[in-house]
Amino acid sequence: MSGPKFLSGDSSAINEFLDKFDTFLIDCDGKRTVFVTNNSTKSRKEYHAKLSSKGIPCQVEDIFGSSYSAAIYISRILKLQAPRNKVFVLGEAGIEAELESEGIPYIGGTDPAYRKLGMAPEDFSGIADGSSLDPDVGVVLAGLDFHVNYYKLAHAHGYLRGNHVQGDDVQKRDGKAVFLATNLDSTLPMYHSVFPGAGSASIVALSNMTGEQPLALGKPSQAMMDAVEGKFHLDRARTCMIGDRLNTDIQFGIEGHLGGTLAVLTGVNKKEDWEKADAVAVPAYYVNVLSDLRGPAST
Amino acid sequence: MSGPKFLSGDSSAINEFLDKFDTFLIDCDGKRTVFVTNNSTKSRKEYHAKLSSKGIPCQVEDIFGSSYSAAIYISRILKLQAPRNKVFVLGEAGIEAELESEGIPYIGGTDPAYRKLGMAPEDFSGIADGSSLDPDVGVVLAGLDFHVNYYKLAHAHGYLRGNHVQGDDVQKRDGKAVFLATNLDSTLPMYHSVFPGAGSASIVALSNMTGEQPLALGKPSQAMMDAVEGKFHLDRARTCMIGDRLNTDIQFGIEGHLGGTLAVLTGVNKKEDWEKADAVAVPAYYVNVLSDLRGPAST
Repeated sequence: MSGPKFLSGDSSAINEFLDKFDTFLIDCDGKRTVFVTNNSTKSRKEYHAKLSSKGIPCQVEDIFGSSYSAAIYISRILKLQAPRNKVFVLGEAGIEAELESEGIPYIGGTDPAYRKLGMAPEDFSGIADGSSLDPDVGVVLAGLDFHVNYYKLAHAHGYLRGNHVQGDDVQKRDGKAVFLATNLDSTLPMYHSVFPGAGSASIVALSNMTGEQPLALGKPSQAMMDAVEGKFHLDRARTCMIGDRLNTDIQFGIEGHLGGTLAVLTGVNKKEDWEKADAVAVPAYYVNVLSDLRGPAST
Repeated sequence: MSGPKFLSGDSSAINEFLDKFDTFLIDCDGKRTVFVTNNSTKSRKEYHAKLSSKGIPCQVEDIFGSSYSAAIYISRILKLQAPRNKVFVLGEAGIEAELESEGIPYIGGTDPAYRKLGMAPEDFSGIADGSSLDPDVGVVLAGLDFHVNYYKLAHAHGYLRGNHVQGDDVQKRDGKAVFLATNLDSTLPMYHSVFPGAGSASIVALSNMTGEQPLALGKPSQAMMDAVEGKFHLDRARTCMIGDRLNTDIQFGIEGHLGGTLAVLTGVNKKEDWEKADAVAVPAYYVNVLSDLRGPAST
């Protein structure tokens, strides 16, 4: 097949497609559905409330967000030993809720003390010599933060450089903070336009300063796919990833060796994006709108 | 010569070096000296006050900052026609002062209306449809901003996308704002540590969103060198660039085909940085500290 198969309006192609899979990631059609989202600002509970309010039936347990993915990674893979197990959060309440659900201590986030504009001389000196930093921070976790500011970036940068463990106390000399990101989306689609995404508003700034790339726990990171598979025991060959973004959703499905990928043309990417020679990912199927999967109107 | 010549403590080499040049950019030794700085947060007047307070004799006219460089570029090269000639500033008072000195209208900057954390729904919608944006903005100028926040980034992004000229008014349909940067320094050395630089805290974020690189008006941009040459009528062959940073100062001098470059080891870069195979720039000379140019103590 030279390109993705177009399904809209073609009932036999739609039936063939639906028969092929047991599990759909993002979708809601009666088979097993897992909602996989990179938006870190909401917790799974908040997503559940949002989907329910839109009449989409689902359970909290069917939702898998990048904040939850990051919290699981920290608690079950990194397994940092106390007391050096605190997370400095550059992000919103969704990250905090998921860290709490895994029992992970954190600072930063929505704490009003970090919602501050401008830098006083003592802000600079305290970060520089580590005296105003928390020696127990072992991770910097960055996601979308609508309250991002220089003061927060400077703190995150100080932890990534290890300013907080430069003292004489040997107990504190166990290195710089690990750099994690919920996701690297450059833009955030909202109000029929796009806004600064997590990748742009904070993460690329930190990478540019430190020269270090974070481990990203959202799509297309396969760390997220492994976690989804581990939790839902899905059969990858009979699982299809459905989404609108080539460099997250579709790439996530292809690199995860799923049975299929379906692009929906209601979002960020259009047909011409995968027809380019340097397309980041080419879906196996596509539809104009997700409701086209119901098949053509019988009238 | 296989590497830079070390001058500290070698009087005959120092004399040979000093004889070779009429003009030094950044330095202060009796010959013509121009202070070239990438820090956009201060105006030339403020720099003059700072240097004078440290006992360094100089004139306001001897100072050439990236904010001034950007203001000159906008007024003398871009020459935007009113009313589409406003600049949206992502930066501090130094940029504002230099834009004012060239009679350029601007918004943003230190205006308290943009010193805001978080986004209300009307902030998103007003930027998305352009209704809260100024249709006269023709340039986004980004520099170091200690008050950077999501609200400002979203505004700058909206102007770069052309959200403010998407209406039906044909007069407004003259395109997206031009993207300029005072400088791209990734870090800012302060308090014997480093902090987020202009390049990291705002510019790389905007580039990551738009996929567009700004024209940078600070070192090592040759737009700055051309402006310095035009103003001071210097003889490049008899001009030496002195500085501590390879990817700004030394690269600036080399790409500007100056007679020489001198690295001072009191700053960001060390000897091993230019001894690497992929060194960004190799200076012609180096000293441990600038005062070594006075020659060895005669005791």
